[in-house]
Amino acid sequence: MKTLISNAMIIPMKQEGVFFFGDIGIEGTSISFVGKKPASFIPDKTIDATGMLAMPALVNAHTHLGMQFMRNYKDKEPNLQAWLAEIFPIEDKLTSSDVLASSRLGVIELIQSGITLFNDMYFFAEATARAVNEVGIRANLGLSLFGDLASTKIRIKEREHQIDSAIEASNSRLTLGIAPHAIYTCTKETYQYGHDWAKANHRNMHTHLSETRKEVDDCIAEHQMPPLHYLDSIGALKDVPSILAHCVHLTPSEIELLKGMDASVVHNPSSNCKLASGVAPIGAYLKNGINVAIGCDGSSSNNNQNLFEEIHIASLLSTVFTGHMSTLRPFEALKMATINGAKALGLDKKIGTLEEGKEADILLLDLNKAHLTPLNDPFSALVYAAQASDVDTLFCQGKMVMEKRKVLGLDQQEIQREVNSSWEAIRNR
Amino acid sequence: MKTLISNAMIIPMKQEGVFFFGDIGIEGTSISFVGKKPASFIPDKTIDATGMLAMPALVNAHTHLGMQFMRNYKDKEPNLQAWLAEIFPIEDKLTSSDVLASSRLGVIELIQSGITLFNDMYFFAEATARAVNEVGIRANLGLSLFGDLASTKIRIKEREHQIDSAIEASNSRLTLGIAPHAIYTCTKETYQYGHDWAKANHRNMHTHLSETRKEVDDCIAEHQMPPLHYLDSIGALKDVPSILAHCVHLTPSEIELLKGMDASVVHNPSSNCKLASGVAPIGAYLKNGINVAIGCDGSSSNNNQNLFEEIHIASLLSTVFTGHMSTLRPFEALKMATINGAKALGLDKKIGTLEEGKEADILLLDLNKAHLTPLNDPFSALVYAAQASDVDTLFCQGKMVMEKRKVLGLDQQEIQREVNSSWEAIRNR
Repeated sequence: MKTLISNAMIIPMKQEGVFFFGDIGIEGTSISFVGKKPASFIPDKTIDATGMLAMPALVNAHTHLGMQFMRNYKDKEPNLQAWLAEIFPIEDKLTSSDVLASSRLGVIELIQSGITLFNDMYFFAEATARAVNEVGIRANLGLSLFGDLASTKIRIKEREHQIDSAIEASNSRLTLGIAPHAIYTCTKETYQYGHDWAKANHRNMHTHLSETRKEVDDCIAEHQMPPLHYLDSIGALKDVPSILAHCVHLTPSEIELLKGMDASVVHNPSSNCKLASGVAPIGAYLKNGINVAIGCDGSSSNNNQNLFEEIHIASLLSTVFTGHMSTLRPFEALKMATINGAKALGLDKKIGTLEEGKEADILLLDLNKAHLTPLNDPFSALVYAAQASDVDTLFCQGKMVMEKRKVLGLDQQEIQREVNSSWEAIRNR
Repeated sequence: MKTLISNAMIIPMKQEGVFFFGDIGIEGTSISFVGKKPASFIPDKTIDATGMLAMPALVNAHTHLGMQFMRNYKDKEPNLQAWLAEIFPIEDKLTSSDVLASSRLGVIELIQSGITLFNDMYFFAEATARAVNEVGIRANLGLSLFGDLASTKIRIKEREHQIDSAIEASNSRLTLGIAPHAIYTCTKETYQYGHDWAKANHRNMHTHLSETRKEVDDCIAEHQMPPLHYLDSIGALKDVPSILAHCVHLTPSEIELLKGMDASVVHNPSSNCKLASGVAPIGAYLKNGINVAIGCDGSSSNNNQNLFEEIHIASLLSTVFTGHMSTLRPFEALKMATINGAKALGLDKKIGTLEEGKEADILLLDLNKAHLTPLNDPFSALVYAAQASDVDTLFCQGKMVMEKRKVLGLDQQEIQREVNSSWEAIRNR
């Protein structure tokens, strides 16, 4: 199958400021050219992308897709700790079929925001894997760990092979990782066991780190060192690629430590603001050469999966907190949501930019909008003016997963009904 | 003409937490009932609003509709002052017909974001008035003042009667005010002359105030007092309703002074972040009983006219800056964008809430969206999850101005073409 995307404004995201008008060819799962169609490329299908912008599909590097139910729920708690106290009892009631419904809804939201890859941490990963495969997008699913070693061993034993068949069916779109929740919910032994499992199985580790001032203060009180030093001291991150969500309150010495690690930071600006956690100093991380990706966090603390909002808010926060407009230039902000996200998940050789030979994860955005007129700088436009609802068409691994805003392969109305009725049942349990 | 909006989820915005399902009747320009349709109300037209949320249309309390051209333009300047140095020379080239094209585009954007009333400050107000009347929304148009007394007298003399006929034709949808730009661009005599004109003509005054730290520092260096005390000391705000845009850096003694004035603050969170100006302490203003409205500022410093984004960002900033999630509760954030905006412009008796007898400025928002499922708390949903693109239908003064996302009465495609060609011509002048 050969698809031609013709006459788009193309942003390959390989170099700052570079965009041009041209065609993109897709053959099977891959990009066969970007720019001018060779005479030898005879498409089976042509998409007229006149008035559209083509760029790499987005990567949501930190989320909890099973939490869709708790959107706009308990929003009046004063901070993260008080809010978690309301959320945890609900989570205890969730079943695999609840998480399937939530994940299906989440996958629709992700696609409607231009996302083809997400990094998830939640219970019942096999249910989320199923939703991902139904549509054919990508995910790194972290086996969620909570509590002590005994419960960790049970969780890993019960879960580690449950998504093997989904992974096998996914043509490498699904990967499995380990996801100890946080230092305030997991013991030292849980982290160490999770680490050893990840190392032995060549998996990555996904964890919340240094999200709130309280987490840092408590860690220092208990271990006489801040969270990253603590995880390092117990060997929890050694020789395992790590994805560290939040990193709002890293100290200068933790930043130094991080520079030498195979680790990425995931910035979650909406969630960190909404839960009063703080603003991560991502300008400092980027200046130190640390890979910074971006995520929506769960819909319960955001309250949606709209990565365009995150890019926008990250840019605004970065400027106002540093007092300088160009701290996070639009190109850098967009990199966080594309190639940096791919890199965090070890997929930067496969996706994250538009170039020949990479897999075809492509987003087409409709520029024919009042709020994108005139366009002037397309990088600024994407960061400051564009909306997730401007995403018109989305490809993942060469396959169209959304066409003219309609997600293909899932019945959105039926899934919304299912989520509403599941949520009612959960609350009555 | 009688219109029935049936079976909506209604948020009248009169009381926190209150919403219900029911009907709304419109007769002519006004709301004839909210809740249950009386048998005597026989509609000429019925809108099935099942699955829609009905609320008061929004008020954008600070903007510059003539600046649409400079969207996504010169976004890499380090701060407001450096950016203005790039923008002012462009503005010097604009003509009335440029401002008409820009205003038409702006009106479309406003409507698509659910806004029926905006408070503008720009040159060629007669052109903006024309665009407003073409569609039939509302505006308070400030005659823009810059520089010294001689130029102020000329500007007022030239402009004050140019929009009389538009105001007359507007059925009170248009009002005129005076808008001295800022203390760093207008002399004392300009403010005083503008003030006297406003007082004599029963107009309001709209000005930028305390937007940046530099403005405050310069004012203290020159006048030995911060900006609001300075304006007070020259009598510029006495007995004239004032709309003070930004107020990012007010001192405690300015807050005390403000409490006793007939003045409203307009919060512009995106613009203040993007231009590295700072974050206005609106929690403190609200606690002191000061009326706080919200605005988008010009599309050049935002970069759009999406008030849903402003509400969202205001809520996030307020929480993260105060460290407490409930500093700006969703209901308060929505009030800023509805009744508080109406109050700032002296129109709170006419619009800003949904109640019998008020004029019918009503927004219908489509709840049938993945990112609004489940809805849970509708106030939280509007602030944290909803998108401007969810606004489906909009009424202003009883007249439908948008239906299923299509703005009525303006040719959007033609206006976009006109703006693009005007912008090219402006840059070549």
